[in-house]
Amino acid sequence: MEVENDIILALDVLNMTEALRIVESVSDYLNTIKIGYPLVLSEGLQSITAIKEEFNCSIIADFKVADIPSTNQKIADVTFEAGTDAIIVHGFVGDDSALACMNSAEKYGKDVFLLTEMSHPGASMFLQQHAEDIAKMGVDLGITNFVGPSTKLDRLEKIRSVIGKDSFLISPGVGTQGGDPKDTLKFADALIVGRSIYLSEDPKKAVEDLIGSIK
Amino acid sequence: MEVENDIILALDVLNMTEALRIVESVSDYLNTIKIGYPLVLSEGLQSITAIKEEFNCSIIADFKVADIPSTNQKIADVTFEAGTDAIIVHGFVGDDSALACMNSAEKYGKDVFLLTEMSHPGASMFLQQHAEDIAKMGVDLGITNFVGPSTKLDRLEKIRSVIGKDSFLISPGVGTQGGDPKDTLKFADALIVGRSIYLSEDPKKAVEDLIGSIK
Repeated sequence: MEVENDIILALDVLNMTEALRIVESVSDYLNTIKIGYPLVLSEGLQSITAIKEEFNCSIIADFKVADIPSTNQKIADVTFEAGTDAIIVHGFVGDDSALACMNSAEKYGKDVFLLTEMSHPGASMFLQQHAEDIAKMGVDLGITNFVGPSTKLDRLEKIRSVIGKDSFLISPGVGTQGGDPKDTLKFADALIVGRSIYLSEDPKKAVEDLIGSIK
Repeated sequence: MEVENDIILALDVLNMTEALRIVESVSDYLNTIKIGYPLVLSEGLQSITAIKEEFNCSIIADFKVADIPSTNQKIADVTFEAGTDAIIVHGFVGDDSALACMNSAEKYGKDVFLLTEMSHPGASMFLQQHAEDIAKMGVDLGITNFVGPSTKLDRLEKIRSVIGKDSFLISPGVGTQGGDPKDTLKFADALIVGRSIYLSEDPKKAVEDLIGSIK
């Protein structure tokens, strides 16, 4: 995946008017948008189709899919049908559930990102201790795209060491959650940035500042 | 939650025509429907509103919510706004993420079900070893509704022992996945049944047979 300026916009807003305004304002600099359930539940899966068509960008559906294999496959199928380029899948529910999404991705010629660990404090309760094993499971399954947290750089470094230098690693948590952009890019291929951009009074300037800080 | 005949229909179909046909055919016997992302992504969140209005039933949104707290809260908010009575939330992402959904549920006067463990083989890789701790975390948070697997009765019994006899426990995995209805109800308050009903040529008879088997 070619991520312009190594920045993915996390578009966690609740309506299309706001979504289109924000994407429009940053579209000179960014070509990859991560869209999650808040927008899709509010405006339908067609919001992904519409943003992709309007801005000719790549869309990563951040659905953190975490169901049994048969349901995972249904979720991935309808998501790829809407034109999504990649879907983010939880690894802790096991290899069969991840494989169901991979089978769907292969059918549609799309990608799966495996979520290894998360950036919020609660992730340390159960998820964190398995992050490396989840990454290893992904490698064994043939997954080459991963998600790891910028708020825990030592963890991100370990995940990179497990998935190897040729895998593609994207990282949320920069900005509002506290992750440092430049440090994160020592281990990640692209930053996922949400609130620092979409809550900014001037999203375009927020992106310009962020690009300046990582050059 | 008052679940008629102790059976919850898992309505994992992909379009409203089929959904309405199935709910219509079993509505003499069932008053609680579990709806997941396959239908909601295909037909929008308004499918929940429509089914609830048409059949005056309770809707459990099986979204297995598993994101950071701020996103969990947004997902729960829009889901409750659509009229959903309860939402299923993953516990392994930690207490802060579960709490975000509880805060939303409290605001709307609705319920949270905490998912402790799952019924598919892959759940044994990472999730299963934490099921009791996740259940304990839910009890500590004040959650009184839980989900546990009918395919692993020894596990279901352990989860019941952690959450206590007064908590409400619902259990998927009966039927196609192999769980036994009568045995499951020794530990669970209600069964979640999907494919054995909605893939049946005669869903009404499938429900009648199931009710007969648990009397």
